[in-house]
Amino acid sequence: MQAGQRSDLRHFFEPDAIAVIASMKDGSGLGYRTITNLRNFGFRGRIYPINPYYDEVLGLKSYSDVTEVGEPIDLAIVITPPPTVPAIIEQCAHSGVKAALIVSENFAEAGGEGAELQRELVEIVRRTGIRVMGPNTIGIVNPAAGLITAPYYVSYQNVQRGGVAYCSQTGFVGPTAQPLRDYAYPISKTCDVGNKCDVNEVDLLNYLADDPDTRVVAMHLEDIRDGRGFIEAARRLVPRKPLLVFKAGRTEAGARASASHTSSLAGDEQVYDSAFKQAGAIRVRSWQEFWEVPRVFSSQPLPRGNRVAIVSHTGGAGVVATDTAVEAGLTVASFSAETLEKLAEMSFRLTTNPMDMGPILSVAENAFQIQEDGLAAALDDPNVDCAALAVYGGLEQLVSPMVEMFVRLMQNRSKTVVIWIYGMQLPAMQEMRRQLEAQGLPAYIDFETAMKALGAAARYVEIRREFER
Amino acid sequence: MQAGQRSDLRHFFEPDAIAVIASMKDGSGLGYRTITNLRNFGFRGRIYPINPYYDEVLGLKSYSDVTEVGEPIDLAIVITPPPTVPAIIEQCAHSGVKAALIVSENFAEAGGEGAELQRELVEIVRRTGIRVMGPNTIGIVNPAAGLITAPYYVSYQNVQRGGVAYCSQTGFVGPTAQPLRDYAYPISKTCDVGNKCDVNEVDLLNYLADDPDTRVVAMHLEDIRDGRGFIEAARRLVPRKPLLVFKAGRTEAGARASASHTSSLAGDEQVYDSAFKQAGAIRVRSWQEFWEVPRVFSSQPLPRGNRVAIVSHTGGAGVVATDTAVEAGLTVASFSAETLEKLAEMSFRLTTNPMDMGPILSVAENAFQIQEDGLAAALDDPNVDCAALAVYGGLEQLVSPMVEMFVRLMQNRSKTVVIWIYGMQLPAMQEMRRQLEAQGLPAYIDFETAMKALGAAARYVEIRREFER
Repeated sequence: MQAGQRSDLRHFFEPDAIAVIASMKDGSGLGYRTITNLRNFGFRGRIYPINPYYDEVLGLKSYSDVTEVGEPIDLAIVITPPPTVPAIIEQCAHSGVKAALIVSENFAEAGGEGAELQRELVEIVRRTGIRVMGPNTIGIVNPAAGLITAPYYVSYQNVQRGGVAYCSQTGFVGPTAQPLRDYAYPISKTCDVGNKCDVNEVDLLNYLADDPDTRVVAMHLEDIRDGRGFIEAARRLVPRKPLLVFKAGRTEAGARASASHTSSLAGDEQVYDSAFKQAGAIRVRSWQEFWEVPRVFSSQPLPRGNRVAIVSHTGGAGVVATDTAVEAGLTVASFSAETLEKLAEMSFRLTTNPMDMGPILSVAENAFQIQEDGLAAALDDPNVDCAALAVYGGLEQLVSPMVEMFVRLMQNRSKTVVIWIYGMQLPAMQEMRRQLEAQGLPAYIDFETAMKALGAAARYVEIRREFER
Repeated sequence: MQAGQRSDLRHFFEPDAIAVIASMKDGSGLGYRTITNLRNFGFRGRIYPINPYYDEVLGLKSYSDVTEVGEPIDLAIVITPPPTVPAIIEQCAHSGVKAALIVSENFAEAGGEGAELQRELVEIVRRTGIRVMGPNTIGIVNPAAGLITAPYYVSYQNVQRGGVAYCSQTGFVGPTAQPLRDYAYPISKTCDVGNKCDVNEVDLLNYLADDPDTRVVAMHLEDIRDGRGFIEAARRLVPRKPLLVFKAGRTEAGARASASHTSSLAGDEQVYDSAFKQAGAIRVRSWQEFWEVPRVFSSQPLPRGNRVAIVSHTGGAGVVATDTAVEAGLTVASFSAETLEKLAEMSFRLTTNPMDMGPILSVAENAFQIQEDGLAAALDDPNVDCAALAVYGGLEQLVSPMVEMFVRLMQNRSKTVVIWIYGMQLPAMQEMRRQLEAQGLPAYIDFETAMKALGAAARYVEIRREFER
């Protein structure tokens, strides 16, 4: 079988018809919740509640089992007690269901009987060809399809659409555990592969390499079952889009914890590091970086090189940003003579990189215009490949004018930009972040992470060049 | 002169009488703003506006200069054009003003004439004995005294009082650049020493060592002018309270940027590292850690050792937390037989550390009680020195019951605790953070930083033991 064929996960991520096999108890039933979430998120395909105790659920005809539906089903979402799951999957396979996502817990991660049940699942997969994601997974969010598989109450009804596929081995990636909407992560897909009894990171890489909505893959991994397959799939993906990896289970204690949670076998850290290098993956070093670093790839053009312009509003922050930039592999750009001339006309204090606009903004009468002109000068410099631009977002009334300024600034420019918001009112800063992200501008409250994101962008360009050789 | 005598900064941090020498223009004048801020923050001492063009400012009698006041003045806040500053400081000194905080910019950091003016200031300090903080500083916040020296609009009127002294070389530490209130940083003092023409980090260490409100000193530094003095002062402070240092200007480019911002001479990174080791300081590695790590020392008892209990709500997060804990110098505690027995009675899935409460909480009917009992069991284990406890704070209606649970839990317990909040609604999570901090419980949304804070607490206990030998 060709790579990419077996890995076709479209039935999981873009189903036309979903069977929900679960409790349909009014309000609290996990199936009832799942269907409610699908409707709230605007899923437009067909939904079949499967539960023998109901005739109708939320206005939909309910069926005793999938064999009764009599229409093609792409995806079954299964949330039933573990001992019932193998027979249900068997039945799904025989009814032509293409894919099953098993939310239920207490399989291999619980050991004993659970591990035995998971082995049964693997056997069914091998024998029938049905694809299974999980068990022990919160599943998928695909905002383009209005798809959400989480069976719990979700307090929001949409997320920011964007280019990042967030893949993980834990439900901690899911919509109930993360304020996906409030942080405005630019999401193409989120996915928890859970215990990986069948679908794993290799399938994800193959599928996401071809997914037009996905511009970058961020992957949290505790283990890799098939190292060669991973490297192969990654090397097919990386020339098209970056792969960022956050490896958990790096320490012995962490690896032990991993074994008891998804029965993963985290291995030698050096082996993983070498595999990621061969794969062309960029490692991120924290859960926060896993979420924040890929955002720069969602909407920004790639930089031509690693020369950064840093525009701060205080000298001290400029120094910290410079350290982080250099440690992230960037070099501080030397402004051209022409740029220096333009900047000197505004103020001799602006003619350094990092450029500190604070002194001039605090006294200038036309501060907005000077800020825009200063940023434009830095962005237009031929020695500048990418830029980190500070903005004061600490007051509600500044949100709209600042967002408009950045949209105007970036209209005819194609440098890679991250925006770093600081200020005194956190809700205003977060609202500015959301509005900028909605305009395709990655904005950060943690400016050191913003620098790391630019560093990753520059690093990816290098990796792609290495791959082309 | 004895160490600690010359370093008495009480006139800066706890003044009874302040002269504000600045523009008093209605609404926008920097002096007018300063006085407004002082009143908003509840400053109860005397305030003397100094400006020859006004008879009265905000209902206060205004004076042409400090010599006219005729009452003792502890602190002069000076915000006038640089060329006027030396004469003003000279006049302050001759009128018996004890301390002057120079907010004005464009001194040494601007080079040329500014550098010359700063040399004049240094000469006046040497000759007259007046103490000067700055120039180029946003100054101080001391919530216990209602003191705030920032001359710009501040959108809040108080901050969370607590035990952390946040010291910096940049105005980026100040109330207009940081959402101090929204993040509920537990503040004893904040201070920007600016260009350090006189008062520097050594004075701060000497003063803060004796400050009863300060339980931990967090210090952002670009350079140290007097290495021996720093080590000496730190070694006096560290046996009493921890010193956390965030060093900026680590890279060559960062050091260059630093020189042009406060004329600091950042030096060899290895020299600094060795100095910090001798000083007994704990290094933090980012601006975010500078703010977040010290919070654990504000209200929590010190741990007896480095054995941590990690309670998560998803296995995946537990693995990530474990990695971070180990990398921060903690060891994962082995629960005692008694604890394991207690936990096994609740669920066999709880008998590991990291303890994943997710599976049981998602099915238990009495989830609140089980959570409280599980946390109590972990905290009471004799093999546990400190604990990181996850809480679901993603929904508004959970804020109060969860805060009450933690307050109840910690009432008769004295282990070092950090709380890690996750969920789907950011405003609710942040409100929970504020409410927990108000109860003396350090709560984190970034759980990896929470682990680093516990690591710093355990490290400090080690350092203190080394010092006692």
